[in-house]
Amino acid sequence: MPGVGPKTAQRLALHILKRSEEEVQALAQALVEAKKQVGLCQVCFHLSAEPTCEICRNANRDNTTICVVADSRDVIALEKTREYKGKYHVLGGVISPMDGIGPDQLHIQQLVRRVSQRGIKEVILAISPSVEGETTTLYVGHLLKPFTKVTRIAFGLPVGGDLEYADEVTLARALEGRRELD
Amino acid sequence: MPGVGPKTAQRLALHILKRSEEEVQALAQALVEAKKQVGLCQVCFHLSAEPTCEICRNANRDNTTICVVADSRDVIALEKTREYKGKYHVLGGVISPMDGIGPDQLHIQQLVRRVSQRGIKEVILAISPSVEGETTTLYVGHLLKPFTKVTRIAFGLPVGGDLEYADEVTLARALEGRRELD
Repeated sequence: MPGVGPKTAQRLALHILKRSEEEVQALAQALVEAKKQVGLCQVCFHLSAEPTCEICRNANRDNTTICVVADSRDVIALEKTREYKGKYHVLGGVISPMDGIGPDQLHIQQLVRRVSQRGIKEVILAISPSVEGETTTLYVGHLLKPFTKVTRIAFGLPVGGDLEYADEVTLARALEGRRELD
Repeated sequence: MPGVGPKTAQRLALHILKRSEEEVQALAQALVEAKKQVGLCQVCFHLSAEPTCEICRNANRDNTTICVVADSRDVIALEKTREYKGKYHVLGGVISPMDGIGPDQLHIQQLVRRVSQRGIKEVILAISPSVEGETTTLYVGHLLKPFTKVTRIAFGLPVGGDLEYADEVTLARALEGRRELD
């Protein structure tokens, strides 16, 4: 399990052994229930208890913009900013031949179908800038460009960060991505 | 002294007491010499042992671009990227009324004079995005806009950073600053 090392694992195991049998039963039941009820949205592949997720069903959100992310965690992170009002598309990972993950293992085909069929004005690629992430961004961007405007999120200095402590690649990207002051 | 807490201070003091008198004399001399020889470049106010610094004297560097930074440390950080080929201007700090630092305490007047007189095609503002840094960026940008194109470095996700771990403000800036994929 991610974030659980040997020490934490031991602590969790001992904690469970100390509980009553009913409590452990309830936890086990809850885990099975969660797994049974939570699936993926048929449209955007975000986690959802219903066939389509809350964001896809929300009529107040902009239908013409899709933000493409690798993972459901990224949807949650972007929702916290309260800045984005469009829809999402969760790829379910990034292209990583080393781990045997090619384009066919991700929800890329469904994205292309989604973008090609409806009146999408902009697709924002919001994929973390690792080597695999860059590959995925370029691959997906290339596929979608015939249909609509494709943008990607900005890379540069994190807000509150200090120039002095930024790594060289980030600084170079910040310089390269400079924008006219308005 | 920055970066020196009580423990390190004690360690340094004991280290000096252990040395021979000649060695301590030599260190003291070196400090005085360094202070005597290193001054500020007359053009860009970067640290320099000569009246004008090495970067200002370098004929291979682009004379038409000036990158404005708060501190000499920022020049060193940007030089490490090996991406920037123009000149610099070191403000000597940021506008911070709380600390009694107004525009007149910084090398802003000299920057305006420099930009207004010569054929400068672009001024890049590369100031850390703190509250004071933002104030300084807007103030300096406002002063320079009548003379030339003014840009600022990009803010967004640091390279290699994960979307999930970025703070909300940085994510919002990364979304806002998105660019078309080329």
